[in-house]
Order: sequence, then C-alpha cells, then structure tokens
Amino acid sequence: MNDFTYYNPTKIEFGKGKEKKIGTYIKEAGYDSVLLAYGTGSIKKGTLYDDTIASLKEAGVAFEEFGGIVSNPVLSKVQEGVKIAKEKKVQAVLGVGGGSVADSVKAIAAGAKYDGDVWDFFIQKAQITEALPVFTVMTLAATASEMNGNSVITNEDTQQKYSISSVHVNPLVSVINPELMATVSKDYLAYSAVDAIAHTIEVYFTAASHPNFNSRIVEAIIKTIMETTEILIENPNDYEARGEFAWAATQALNGLTPAGTHGGNFPNHMIEHALSALYNVSHGAGLSVVIPAWMKWYKEKNLPQFERFAKELFNLQDADAGISALESWFEKISSPVTLKQAGIPEEGIAEIADNAAELATLWGIGELYNSETIAEILKKA
Amino acid sequence: MNDFTYYNPTKIEFGKGKEKKIGTYIKEAGYDSVLLAYGTGSIKKGTLYDDTIASLKEAGVAFEEFGGIVSNPVLSKVQEGVKIAKEKKVQAVLGVGGGSVADSVKAIAAGAKYDGDVWDFFIQKAQITEALPVFTVMTLAATASEMNGNSVITNEDTQQKYSISSVHVNPLVSVINPELMATVSKDYLAYSAVDAIAHTIEVYFTAASHPNFNSRIVEAIIKTIMETTEILIENPNDYEARGEFAWAATQALNGLTPAGTHGGNFPNHMIEHALSALYNVSHGAGLSVVIPAWMKWYKEKNLPQFERFAKELFNLQDADAGISALESWFEKISSPVTLKQAGIPEEGIAEIADNAAELATLWGIGELYNSETIAEILKKA
Repeated sequence: MNDFTYYNPTKIEFGKGKEKKIGTYIKEAGYDSVLLAYGTGSIKKGTLYDDTIASLKEAGVAFEEFGGIVSNPVLSKVQEGVKIAKEKKVQAVLGVGGGSVADSVKAIAAGAKYDGDVWDFFIQKAQITEALPVFTVMTLAATASEMNGNSVITNEDTQQKYSISSVHVNPLVSVINPELMATVSKDYLAYSAVDAIAHTIEVYFTAASHPNFNSRIVEAIIKTIMETTEILIENPNDYEARGEFAWAATQALNGLTPAGTHGGNFPNHMIEHALSALYNVSHGAGLSVVIPAWMKWYKEKNLPQFERFAKELFNLQDADAGISALESWFEKISSPVTLKQAGIPEEGIAEIADNAAELATLWGIGELYNSETIAEILKKA
Repeated sequence: MNDFTYYNPTKIEFGKGKEKKIGTYIKEAGYDSVLLAYGTGSIKKGTLYDDTIASLKEAGVAFEEFGGIVSNPVLSKVQEGVKIAKEKKVQAVLGVGGGSVADSVKAIAAGAKYDGDVWDFFIQKAQITEALPVFTVMTLAATASEMNGNSVITNEDTQQKYSISSVHVNPLVSVINPELMATVSKDYLAYSAVDAIAHTIEVYFTAASHPNFNSRIVEAIIKTIMETTEILIENPNDYEARGEFAWAATQALNGLTPAGTHGGNFPNHMIEHALSALYNVSHGAGLSVVIPAWMKWYKEKNLPQFERFAKELFNLQDADAGISALESWFEKISSPVTLKQAGIPEEGIAEIADNAAELATLWGIGELYNSETIAEILKKA
C-alpha cells in the first residue's frame, strides 16, 4: 500500500425525483444565485428543464441561464461562461446534463475566481486555489464527474484536449436520478460503459503495485457495468440496472480505486484525448478503439495483472484471451474497436500520436509514450 | 436501488509517518487548540505519544491531555471529557488510539456543544446539530470509526451500550498509519477481523434488496480481511497486509456498502452490545459468538443471499456449509464461537436478551427481535 490522501467531500443525492430538490440543496448550502448551465438536448427531454427552474424558484435561488454546451466541451464556451459568471456575480454554478456539462461548470467555477485565462489551469501555468461552489444534476452516467474534481476541456485553437483535477471543483452536491438517464441512446449507453470501464483499468494495469483489495473493487465495478449494460440494451427502463450502472460508474473515478496503488497513469485516456481533439469522436467510442490496441501493446509489461484480469472477469486462463474477450464485448455492445470503425483514417495516426505525445510530456509519462510508441499502439487499432 | 444520500467528508491521511503531521492537519483546518484524548496503552507504545506532542507543539496547537479511555468506553469518562472540553474551551478534539478512543472523542465533541447531558443523544432524546471538529490518529483497524459518524458508548449505571450516528462527528481528518497497528495482539487482530466482517454482513443479509454491486463490494472487503488476517497472524509486520486490512476495514463501515440497499439493520451488533454491556467481552469476540448463531437462526429468511455468500466466499453450494465455513474460520483465528468460550454462563442468556430487546425497540426492529427470539438465537451459541 502506497501512502495516499483520500478526500471526497461531494454529497450524492441518489434516487427518484431528487432533481426536484436541487433548489433546496443549493439554498441549504448557503447560496442564493447560480449560473444554470446545460447542453443542447438532455435537459429539454421530459420535464427536467421545467422541474429545475421550478425548484430554483421555489427555493428562492436566482439563476442566469447558460445553455448550448456541446459534447467534447470547448474552451471558448467555458470562457463565455466565466465571463457571465463574473459579470452577473453568481454565487455558485449548477450544471444539468452529462459529463460535458459537469466538466464545463467545474472549469467555469475555477475560472470565475481567477483573474487570468482559465486555460492556464489546464496547461499547468496556474494552480486552482479557489472556485465557485459546484452543483450538478446528471443525465448520463459515465464520467464520474459528479463525484470528482476532474474536468476535460478542448482548446479548439490549439486542438489540445487537456484536463484539470482539483478538490476545489468537486461538486458540493450532485443529484443522480437513474430515471433521468433512461432516454440515453444505445450508442451512448455503450460509450458510457466503455468510459467507466476505462476509468478503472488504467491504474489497474499501469500501477507499480496492485493491492488485492483495489483489484477486487475494480473487478466488482467492471462486472457490474458489463452486467447492467447488457440488461439496459434489452430494457432501457430497468431502473435497478440503470441505478447500479450509475453508481458503479461514479465509484469508478471518485478516488477509491487508485487509493494505495503506486505509479498508475492514464495512457488510454491520453491517446483518446488526442484522438477526439482532432476527430469528432465520442470519448467512449475513442476509448474502445484505443483500449484493446493498448492492452496488446502493454501486456508484457505487467503480465500477471493481465492474467488476473482474464481469470477474474472472463474465467479465462491467459492474458491474450482476456484482451480478446474485452474486445469482443465492446463489439457486442456496438462500440467501435478499430480506427476504421470509428471513421478515423490511417493517415491520421501520425498527427494523433504527436498530439498525444505532447500530453504525455505534460503528464510526465513521455519516456514510455512518445510519437513513435503511440503510433505503434494506434497501428494495432 | 433504493434512494440514498451518500456524504462522507472525512479526509483520510494514509501512510507511514503521517501521525507526525497531525498538528499541521489541525492547524491547516483552522484550529489552535485540542483536547488530546487517548487510552490506556497504545499511545505509549513506541514513540507515538512523543510524536503527537511534538507535532502539536511544532504546529502551534495548544492541547489539554485526557487519557485513560478504556475499551468498551463508558459514559462517565465521556462526561468527564465534555466537562474539560467546555472548561478549557478547546476548539477541537483529537483522539489517538483505537475505536474506543475515536468513539469517545466523537461523543465528547457532540456533548461539548450541548447544554444537556450527552447521553440524551444516545437515547434519542436529543438530536446532534453541531459538534467540535474531530481528528483521529488510529492505532487499531476494525471499527471504521475513523471515517464515519458513529459512536458506541456504555452507560455503566443503566448497563446500556447505545450508539449515535451523525455526520457532525465524522472526523475532519483521520490518520491511518498501518505501522502503528503492527503491535496489536493476535487476539485483538482476530477480534478486529470479526468486527470488520460483521459491519459488512449485517446489511448484506438483512436488506430487503441486494444490488449485485453492493454484494460484490462486501465480498471484496471480506475476502481482503480474511486473506490479510491470515498473513498477519503469521507475520504481524507485513506492511502490505496491514495496510490492506486497515483500508478494507475502513470501507466496511463508511457508508459505501449499504448505499442503495433497503431496510437493512444490525441485529448482530445489537445482541453483542447487550452482551458486552453485561459482560466484559471484547466487541469482536462477542460478535464471533453471536454471528454464527444468528446466521443459523436467520438464514431461512433470506436463503438466496446465504447461498450467494457460501458460493462467493467459500466456493460452497449451500447456505449451511457457508455458515459452517465462516464459523470454522473464526475458530481458526482463535475468536470464540460459543458463549462458553467467551466465558458467558448460559444462565446469563435471559438478561442479555432483555437488554438487547430494549435496544431492538429503540432501533425499530422490536417486532422481529424480542426477548424470546433473541434468547432463541443465543441458545444456538
């Protein structure tokens, strides 16, 4: 067990109809006004938009609307949000939507308390020392953004998809109502499943030490995601499966799974961030392309853990068979596993590799991951 | 999945030497003085006492010493602590020790902000609405008291061993350094293992619903506790095993395992609290007596989950075999499994049952657990 600090002060309000109390949660936390941020679609499905507005009004929380956040959220939109938050002097930010909305409100929350450009945080030119309080109501389970301090934003000018991580932007309160997630398309359900699985296996495979306890928690999460995804493909309205999927996805990236491991990193996310910075691919779809390729490339560096993975997840005896089984499962749920299936031309590999290599340097793993090795991985896809 | 609120704002500082920073943690949280509470032994082993004092002095945190807390901690001692905390106007409380010390400082923290008798909280005559900030340095892994809002205290006058649960007494920061736990005796290691397992199986068996995800997390915890206990019996200085044991025990009762289940309760703890209120038995030793007896009595009420338990933990096919396997494992680690082994006379059963039945009424499970049914369970032990 490596030394660690575990601190996750986000309160999760999980269950049916809890979004109707979001105004109360904000008021009880001591805030009277919010920037109400949302995307391009999910808040207007059903009654969520109306319920949110009604809840804020009822609780006496003033709000400034800020819609139109897109998936693979972009810096210019975050900068616009920061400007409004500063001008209107809102006391807090509320994101209603999926991971893109949650990530955007966190960046806005940090930017609103900073005199410089919010991008400074992403290129590690400045450290986040304070932020507006963040609240979220989630309409998609995948990113765990509802219970962590991470935010991934794309700078359209530089084609850099970079991230921040700070407890200052952990949501104070996040609402997870599985009912709000029932309208997600089968495509996005699959991409979400891939994303949640990806969050756990990065450290599972790359850490220098693997406490059995951490491995078991990861395996519990992956088993749950796989099992419930298959149920939800058949029956999107299965509330139990939707709930377990959502909560397992939250646990996948809230600090629990890496606590006590040592030296883990996120190469699949790194490569995928480059991929979707350059091509308009869903994060989960990009990950299901990268992961099997990366696993084939990386397995010799940590064979015992790949054998464990094969055994525990698929009851198979060797590492290659485990990798193939995961790849087949991605195909089964209709998530792409080759660049071609994701609509990315082979000629794009060099540019993606160069882009990812820059990120590798920023993340301090540039020794193992450079343009050559990343291209080598991508060629396996 | 049942609706739930998950909120656990305790920061865990896990690792070697972290106790030497406790003064800094307190100061950084904004406090200048503490009641420094400890027990009768563990703080004086090695350099922990000196390190604690040095850390407080170095950080400029004034302290009032309050030693002598015993296991199965008692109300009179808590009341004494409350009195000192009020008189000396300390800003926070720091417990250095095991679960008894942690539980005592929580009760002191609540009592110090209350005009009436602190026992009012335990008999649900009053609700905790505020408390002094709590900090802990743990020398024993078992209770998860370092990361929850629970406190169990015995009123010696009434022979009631009752509890409170409030996020107001969740520690702000808890230090878990596995090295500080290496001197625990084999007896107490075994009792700690039983306690941690007990925390997970109560809800695992008694909940009206069992999401697979929750069951998997519980099984991951139990497997880890059993595996690491066996390693530690052979080699008390195995740091990895000590660390995994400690962290798994923390996860066993920090709110994670029951989140989303429905209707679970704590009958084994209830009966054991009565048992150790009347007899001077270690909590874990009492639990290993009660659990197999209770399982035999209860199994027909939730047979599928008992079958799952047998399969997942011991690779056995039927419920009875699973219960026997757990009982045998308790015997293997030398924790008592009969009243006789725990030094409790059969004639004591009626009094224990009456005492536990009072608690059952307070906990709202008096319909199933009355003097007769509890005596029936105890006769199986």
